[in-house]
Formats: sequence, structure tokens, C-alpha cells
Amino acid sequence: MLYDRFIVALDPPRGAGVGWALRVASALCGFAWGFKLGLPFLAGFGVEGFRLVRRACPGASIVADLKLADIGFSMRLTVERVGPYVDAVIAHSFVGVEGGLGELAEWARESGVRLALVYTMSHGGSAEVLAPCRGRLAEVIRRVRPWGVVAPATRPGEVEEARRLFPWARILSPGVGAQGARPGSALCAGADYEIVGRSVAHSPRPLEALLEAAREASRCHPR
Amino acid sequence: MLYDRFIVALDPPRGAGVGWALRVASALCGFAWGFKLGLPFLAGFGVEGFRLVRRACPGASIVADLKLADIGFSMRLTVERVGPYVDAVIAHSFVGVEGGLGELAEWARESGVRLALVYTMSHGGSAEVLAPCRGRLAEVIRRVRPWGVVAPATRPGEVEEARRLFPWARILSPGVGAQGARPGSALCAGADYEIVGRSVAHSPRPLEALLEAAREASRCHPR
Repeated sequence: MLYDRFIVALDPPRGAGVGWALRVASALCGFAWGFKLGLPFLAGFGVEGFRLVRRACPGASIVADLKLADIGFSMRLTVERVGPYVDAVIAHSFVGVEGGLGELAEWARESGVRLALVYTMSHGGSAEVLAPCRGRLAEVIRRVRPWGVVAPATRPGEVEEARRLFPWARILSPGVGAQGARPGSALCAGADYEIVGRSVAHSPRPLEALLEAAREASRCHPR
Repeated sequence: MLYDRFIVALDPPRGAGVGWALRVASALCGFAWGFKLGLPFLAGFGVEGFRLVRRACPGASIVADLKLADIGFSMRLTVERVGPYVDAVIAHSFVGVEGGLGELAEWARESGVRLALVYTMSHGGSAEVLAPCRGRLAEVIRRVRPWGVVAPATRPGEVEEARRLFPWARILSPGVGAQGARPGSALCAGADYEIVGRSVAHSPRPLEALLEAAREASRCHPR
């Protein structure tokens, strides 16, 4: 079963408290490879929320998906706050290296936190700027050589491309479930992990939903 | 005096509590046009920090510079949390309209919060991807037609370009002070507001530092 190839995004539904996130994390603990905590989570529950999820399931990898896209100084100030509670942070490759990702990568090395960079995204708008500019994005990713690269399950061709261009990297693929990609779409195309959100985390029975997704993905034989 | 053309970024120095931000905001209240609260601020002080700054200086415009760069669903979940305490939010144009900024712009209209989109940035890395792709970024900005556009004081040529391309928009220019641009660089080039951070907010005498920057900028006669 491939449930350990899934990362579950804990984007809180409207009105949910941190207890919601802790219940979902506990239900999936020992199954999901990790949890993705994004800006909606940070805005809702603060850095303290990160600490609580870490404590609710210490074995899971915690990915801070803050979609960092700022100058190096500001990105560092941000990640220093969540660093103690996370295994990886996601930033956008389009901010470039000089005075930007260079400083963030240095912080990641010093602090032992893994860095993942976005190549392209899962929504329609990704085709407007990111996709046509991805030659330059790939150049930034090659220079930074991050632990992970984010490419969308909704476009398996871009996952295959990322797999080929960045052979050293873990490929993380969002867009599974509510955003339209079938579980396994990205794993079949060479991704290492699929990121699933609402269809598991907002389900009344998150573990059953995760196992069902893993069953569907088991048609693939990922590396 | 042009002090009311300055937005002061309240990025907390290491170890600072929310009291630091409130002291700076109070000292500049009635002078600075507004305050920019970014991800370091959110990570440090939460949504409650936004509420406290609003209360410390109700007349100032509060700009949530979360550098939003995600799918529409996630951006909305985030801004709904800070919306009650801010006048404007900043997002990245490169995420595109479909399933991205389109949804955010709709939320902005419904909630009465102004939207500002990043054109190019103030650090060196902006020249690696953003600047060469800015024809596509301009197209996104024209489609969304946001209240504001962000262009860097460190590159007055890009401010002039933004002024020409987006005549309806307020131009907000970061990069003044610690990042290298001289106060007035952007106002002289057609910007409406200059964003200054460390050189004012981390100064032992923030108001004197702001007034000094305003004096230096007074060589320009902005529109």
C-alpha cells in the first residue's frame, strides 16, 4: 500500500479550530508520510499550531508550505519562527537566487531544514506565466539544488519533465482530489509524493479516504 | 513634507515581541501613510498582532504583505483571517488569473479590501525570472486591474515602466533604505508610496528617521 507516499494538506475549513487539525493528524498518524501546513494554517493557528501538530504525530514529516516568495531577509525572518517544528519548507523558484533563495538555502543548510522549490503549480493560472517561463525556473532550481521540487499532479507531463530535469530531487505533487487529479497520477509520472488536501482532510473519515486514495494509486509502481 | 507617502514595514527584529511593533506604530502614527505587515509579522504575532496594530493607529492604512502566491482556494482561506484588520493585501501576479488571482480579486471586491499585485521585486534575483517574464506579468495585472502595483525603488526604470503600463494603479515601491534605494528614488520615478523598513522601523528614533527620509524625498514633486 502506498499510503506512505501521501502528504496531507491541513488547510482548515472555515471556522475550524486547531483541534480539527490535531484530530486529522492523529487519525492519519503512522499512515501518511507527512502533513503540509500552509498559510491558512499559520494565519489560523500560529506557530503554536505547528508545534501541536508535530507533537500529535512526531513520526510524520511536517512540510511548511508558506509558498515563500520574498527577499531573502524576509524569508529568513519567517522560517526562523517555524524552523524548530518543521522538516521542510516550500518556496517559489521564481524569486531567483541573488538576495533571495540563496539566503534561504543557506539558512536551510545551517538549520537542517529541507528546502523544496515550486517548479509549476496545479491551477489553470500556472499556464499563464509559470509554465512559459519554466526554462528560467529550471535554471534557478539547478543552481539552488534543493531537496525537493514541487510539480502539479494535474499536469503529469510537467511531473515527468521535473523528474527528468531534477533527478536528485524528491518530487512533491499537489492537486490530487478536489483539484482534479486522480490519486496516482503523479506517482505514475515519477513523483515521490502526492499531496492531497480537502478530499482526505475534510472527509468525515480521513483514514478511510487516505487508504482509498492509496489503493487507487497502487496501479503505479513508483521508484 | 512627504511623510504621508511612506509605508513603514514592521518586520520584527529577532527576539522582538509585538510590543516592539506597537511602539513603532504609535511613534509614526499620524505621519506614515500606513504600515506593511508581512509574513515575519504574521509568524511572530499572529492575526491578533494585526488587530493590535490597527488599534494602535486606526488612521493608518494596513497593508498585509503576505506575498500571496498560491491557488485561489488557499489564498482566500488565508486572507479571510486577516481581512477584518487590513486595508490592502499584496499578492504575486505570476500565479496567474485562472483558479488563482481571479478568486482572490473576487474576494477583495466582496470584502472591500484592496488588492495590490507584485510586478517586479527589489532584490537581485528579480532580474533572473521576474524581469525577463514581465510582459506576461503585465498581462495578468491588466486583466485583474488591481488597486495597487508593486515595483522596486531599487530599479527606478521599472517604476517608470509600471507607472506607464498601469496608469489607474497606485504604485508601491519597496527597497528604500537598507536595501539600497535612496528615499525619493521611486517617488521621483512616479510611484505613489515608498516602502521603507529597517532603516526606520529598527531605528532607535523611528519618527526622526522617517522625517529624515521624507526630507530627502522632498526633492521630488510626485503627482
